Amino acid sequence: MALSARNQLPGTVEDVRLGDIMAHVVVRVGQSIVESVITRTSAEELKLKKGDSVRVVVKSTEVMIQKD
Amino acid sequence: MALSARNQLPGTVEDVRLGDIMAHVVVRVGQSIVESVITRTSAEELKLKKGDSVRVVVKSTEVMIQKD
Amino acid sequence: MALSARNQLPGTVEDVRLGDIMAHVVVRVGQSIVESVITRTSAEELKLKKGDSVRVVVKSTEVMIQKD
Amino acid sequence: MALSARNQLPGTVEDVRLGDIMAHVVVRVGQSIVESVITRTSAEELKLKKGDSVRVVVKSTEVMIQKD
Amino acid sequence: MALSARNQLPGTVEDVRLGDIMAHVVVRVGQSIVESVITRTSAEELKLKKGDSVRVVVKSTEVMIQKD
Amino acid sequence: MALSARNQLPGTVEDVRLGDIMAHVVVRVGQSIVESVITRTSAEELKLKKGDSVRVVVKSTEVMIQKD
Repeated sequence: MALSARNQLPGTVEDVRLGDIMAHVVVRVGQSIVESVITRTSAEELKLKKGDSVRVVVKSTEVMIQKD
Repeated sequence: MALSARNQLPGTVEDVRLGDIMAHVVVRVGQSIVESVITRTSAEELKLKKGDSVRVVVKSTEVMIQKD
Repeated sequence: MALSARNQLPGTVEDVRLGDIMAHVVVRVGQSIVESVITRTSAEELKLKKGDSVRVVVKSTEVMIQKD
Repeated sequence: MALSARNQLPGTVEDVRLGDIMAHVVVRVGQSIVESVITRTSAEELKLKKGDSVRVVVKSTEVMIQKD
Repeated sequence: MALSARNQLPGTVEDVRLGDIMAHVVVRVGQSIVESVITRTSAEELKLKKGDSVRVVVKSTEVMIQKD
Repeated sequence: MALSARNQLPGTVEDVRLGDIMAHVVVRVGQSIVESVITRTSAEELKLKKGDSVRVVVKSTEVMIQKD
């Protein structure tokens, strides 16, 4: 099963906070922290919790570049 | 100058390909590769080229989670 | 392997047009047509072609509602 | 009035859940279910409720393709 | 016909450039310039050209805030 | 520090509402109102409040065009 999204980085869940509709998920990816906001329903269905091995997935059209 | 986007990861440009309207930019971020599609105009204005130090910037609402 | 994106609809590829950087993919989903723009690189790596069985995947935060 | 978004699929609202800032809307589109997260303010201004005839609208750059 | 996207700003097309798959559209909105990338197909179907009265439409979840 | 996002419009915060996970921010940009949904965490870290001078930032691939 292959998804067109070009960014699929492995990491470990560090924190999950559930709100009424959305959930805020913090994932360690190598030396970096990546933050995600998904629906609470998805967070519950995936049973996301601290320590889970996951991938963070981002479509390349959503990635901006900043140059100092 | 602080931007609300929660994901701003430092990296190094590995490749820039310019199309007619869009540009495909490949950035090394730690052990990972992150790919970005921006406008050709932005790639040119930023003078993006291999070796540049940049940040890849992603709004957290654009980040999905995959759990195996 | 479960992805947080809540919309993952099965369909059949009707058309793939490759540009320099992007590709335009047309998918039949039930009675509807869904159009997608992904990178050319992804279209090539997935070897997308007319007749392929695929899923169109959309994060729920990207879906708007129009009421007449 | 024509919108550039290429995906505008007719459906029927099955569920609306209002949160503090966001709302989760579930729409039946043919045989499929499409889920949307919009602002609570929009859900209230559109007076969205179960049974409403709506269109789900998605920009094609937000649609990914998964091939099994 | 009401769309949930909270940002729908009136403006005038200043430039349209057609690429193979995408089109780059520049719109004057009050004192500001707003740039959009849509599919070439949509630009052609809308017959977008310099001088057209249009609205630029953005879902609020796509808007970031920068504070100096 | 230059960001690839082509739309970076100066404005003044008119309202900030904090939810459990997300925040709804209203910004006056010239004669227009622009609404943004960001994480509550970002709104707090930026100490966003009525009267702040900010920029609203939108990637051009997120901007649709509506023609009447």
